[in-house]
Amino acid sequence: MSKETLLIIGGGDAGMTTASWARRRKPDMNIIVFEKTHMISHAPCGLPYYIEGLFDNENLLSAYTPEEFEKERNVNVKTNHEVVEFDFNNRIVYVKNKNGIDKYEYDYLTLAMGAKPKKVRHYDEDSNIIYVHHPANAVEVKKRIAGLNNIAILGGGILGVELAEALLKNGKNVFLIHKNNYLLDKMLDEDMASFITKYVSNYVKLRLNEEALEIKNGGKIIITNNNKYEVDGTIVAIGVEPNTDLVDKRLLGETRAIKTDEYMRTKYKDVYAVGDIAESINILTKKPDWQPFAPVAGKMGFTAGNHIGGVNYKFPGLVGTAITKYKDYFIAKTGLTEKEAKKNGIKTISTIIKSTTRARYYPGGKDIIVKLIAEENTQKIIGGQIIGSEEVLGRIDMIALAIMKSNTLYDLFYLEHAYVPAISRSWDPVILAARSLLTKF
Amino acid sequence: MSKETLLIIGGGDAGMTTASWARRRKPDMNIIVFEKTHMISHAPCGLPYYIEGLFDNENLLSAYTPEEFEKERNVNVKTNHEVVEFDFNNRIVYVKNKNGIDKYEYDYLTLAMGAKPKKVRHYDEDSNIIYVHHPANAVEVKKRIAGLNNIAILGGGILGVELAEALLKNGKNVFLIHKNNYLLDKMLDEDMASFITKYVSNYVKLRLNEEALEIKNGGKIIITNNNKYEVDGTIVAIGVEPNTDLVDKRLLGETRAIKTDEYMRTKYKDVYAVGDIAESINILTKKPDWQPFAPVAGKMGFTAGNHIGGVNYKFPGLVGTAITKYKDYFIAKTGLTEKEAKKNGIKTISTIIKSTTRARYYPGGKDIIVKLIAEENTQKIIGGQIIGSEEVLGRIDMIALAIMKSNTLYDLFYLEHAYVPAISRSWDPVILAARSLLTKF
Repeated sequence: MSKETLLIIGGGDAGMTTASWARRRKPDMNIIVFEKTHMISHAPCGLPYYIEGLFDNENLLSAYTPEEFEKERNVNVKTNHEVVEFDFNNRIVYVKNKNGIDKYEYDYLTLAMGAKPKKVRHYDEDSNIIYVHHPANAVEVKKRIAGLNNIAILGGGILGVELAEALLKNGKNVFLIHKNNYLLDKMLDEDMASFITKYVSNYVKLRLNEEALEIKNGGKIIITNNNKYEVDGTIVAIGVEPNTDLVDKRLLGETRAIKTDEYMRTKYKDVYAVGDIAESINILTKKPDWQPFAPVAGKMGFTAGNHIGGVNYKFPGLVGTAITKYKDYFIAKTGLTEKEAKKNGIKTISTIIKSTTRARYYPGGKDIIVKLIAEENTQKIIGGQIIGSEEVLGRIDMIALAIMKSNTLYDLFYLEHAYVPAISRSWDPVILAARSLLTKF
Repeated sequence: MSKETLLIIGGGDAGMTTASWARRRKPDMNIIVFEKTHMISHAPCGLPYYIEGLFDNENLLSAYTPEEFEKERNVNVKTNHEVVEFDFNNRIVYVKNKNGIDKYEYDYLTLAMGAKPKKVRHYDEDSNIIYVHHPANAVEVKKRIAGLNNIAILGGGILGVELAEALLKNGKNVFLIHKNNYLLDKMLDEDMASFITKYVSNYVKLRLNEEALEIKNGGKIIITNNNKYEVDGTIVAIGVEPNTDLVDKRLLGETRAIKTDEYMRTKYKDVYAVGDIAESINILTKKPDWQPFAPVAGKMGFTAGNHIGGVNYKFPGLVGTAITKYKDYFIAKTGLTEKEAKKNGIKTISTIIKSTTRARYYPGGKDIIVKLIAEENTQKIIGGQIIGSEEVLGRIDMIALAIMKSNTLYDLFYLEHAYVPAISRSWDPVILAARSLLTKF
């Protein structure tokens, strides 16, 4: 019997994690990763900080080199190899490299092509229209931005807000143009977002309720529904979408990402999809959901790699956890926003607790604001949003766990939480939020 | 019908929280708090930081003044009133104040007298033997310590370690004398404690495996099983015990604290016990447990106050969560240590993950070490220990929740955690720990 072959398309976190676990479970399997750039295990989340100048070595945007992966994990990594066609029925992938197009057969295939930035339409050359997306272009993008002074950022989501901070630190003059009436509107409800929107507006020229209708002169002129801006260049950060150009559209789900089952299999049982290209199910709404973030990608890769390797762990679905940073605030959410919950017909109760991060007598305490959302009928936790300067991450993870395990307000309130004056209050704001809702009943 | 009367003995967090919730539920009830010092809602956790000099206003060690409580919550607060006798059968409490002894009848009584420091035996005057326990003596204790240069601390638990830092910051020469072979041995297993023990030993004169047998010359001479120390004074921090001197011993449980039911009632159904004087049940071992920490005290007070007020929330029991700080490290635990688990006949598996607090390219990342313990048969999480410089608190709370809700390694691994490079890694160390144990099966 000849060796089994696993082909993985895309060398990002999800693909490489799939490779690692398949290898661990099947030491003899033939595993090949095709990556169209020169870089694998890349960290797009690091791009704003590289542009900010917090580190200069762009190689740090990659966790492993192809050579390390080959040597340490016996995975054949083919960089600068771009897939041009899939033949799922005959289990064949066609791959282009500098020498031409080769044909590869597989027993298992994993699609891990990630996401790509949504593009703006424009009608002339695009020399100063910049997309910050893939670490493979990090050096070039940083250089292009360095040459500009007045910069427009289109989009006030996570990437737009992070880039605003990066540019400000480099003395740039920033216009942040966002179509909604508050920033980070996919993460936060308006009551929470208003705080951070106001804070950001202290530093950048914030233009809310504006959408770019036309971009001219290679990104130097932006015409919105309200204004015309003349800048030196435009960074487009209006969102990402699954990179499914080559994929049979019958594989896609409602979110336009590739539909998967609990083992990350597509409708072809020998074809898996993981990471930013894959759709799963939202645990709360039971509807298709898509969360293009690294922790999800890693666990999807773990699930697929193990399943290909004969070990079954079910991917449990999504709740939607995200975190970003603007200057001294971390901004995080998990579960449904109240707005999303209502749209899904869930009757909610919610509260907002404003507190500080340290005991009243301990120096250096800063703001922390917690919003907690529960389902009215069941008292189950369904969402949390936190803005604060310290200890935001662990608290949002705790709420995420509570949501995933169907914990109630009672469960969260009676959690035996830790308290040390240097970093917390004896009545933790998350506990206070749970208490506030629990005692409404 | 005359008004119901609730008497509360002890004006700390647990007692005042009981008062607040009873008041909220029964606006007409007669509520009296007796506190033997001049201070209520006091924060003993703040004492090391006051001594360190992080703040100078000792009034900050109290969250509310008696006047504020009376005015805002209509609770009659009698400071400098010390209970001298309980008559549970006839529902009478005898209280001493400067004018003599008064007799008070009650419908409900809440015992909230807290804990007291364990004492050392000594045979002469004790002028330089110092106990750091109650904020009411904060000013005097700080003054006494200020006059000393060479100081011995007896006890390397939470208080001893926190005081060591406080004294070092004030240029004191510190001997830390601890009877076990590693510090914080009630919180941590040796594998985790060894790290922090070594770190502390870089700064203080650490004397492990030593116990004070005799203290002479008013704390200036300490004779241990191994050595004789001549110092200027001795701080005793060898632990606390429930302050049950006046309480009928038939009310006490195995831990020597007052046994309570799920509503914090003692064997007398009209007598409640809350806070550091109260025993509850450990959720994991099902045995009596005692956790004298502020978050537990607050939730016990909430439970008792609501129950007295006719609203029933069951106190769920304890898992044992604690956190402390030494210089730039937070040290936290929840659930059972592996040592405790084994003593209770639980077969464990565990792992230790060493990581850093930030993405490899993000500046300022520091150490974080996570130990995770699960029950082998069920894969349920039963303990966690974390030492790290950032984001320790929320992570330990998350593990505490996982333990309290019987979550498994699978549940914890698949938690959709948050990731932002400035404060975390995409493979969070807690998630890695869960993965490491999950994939052993």
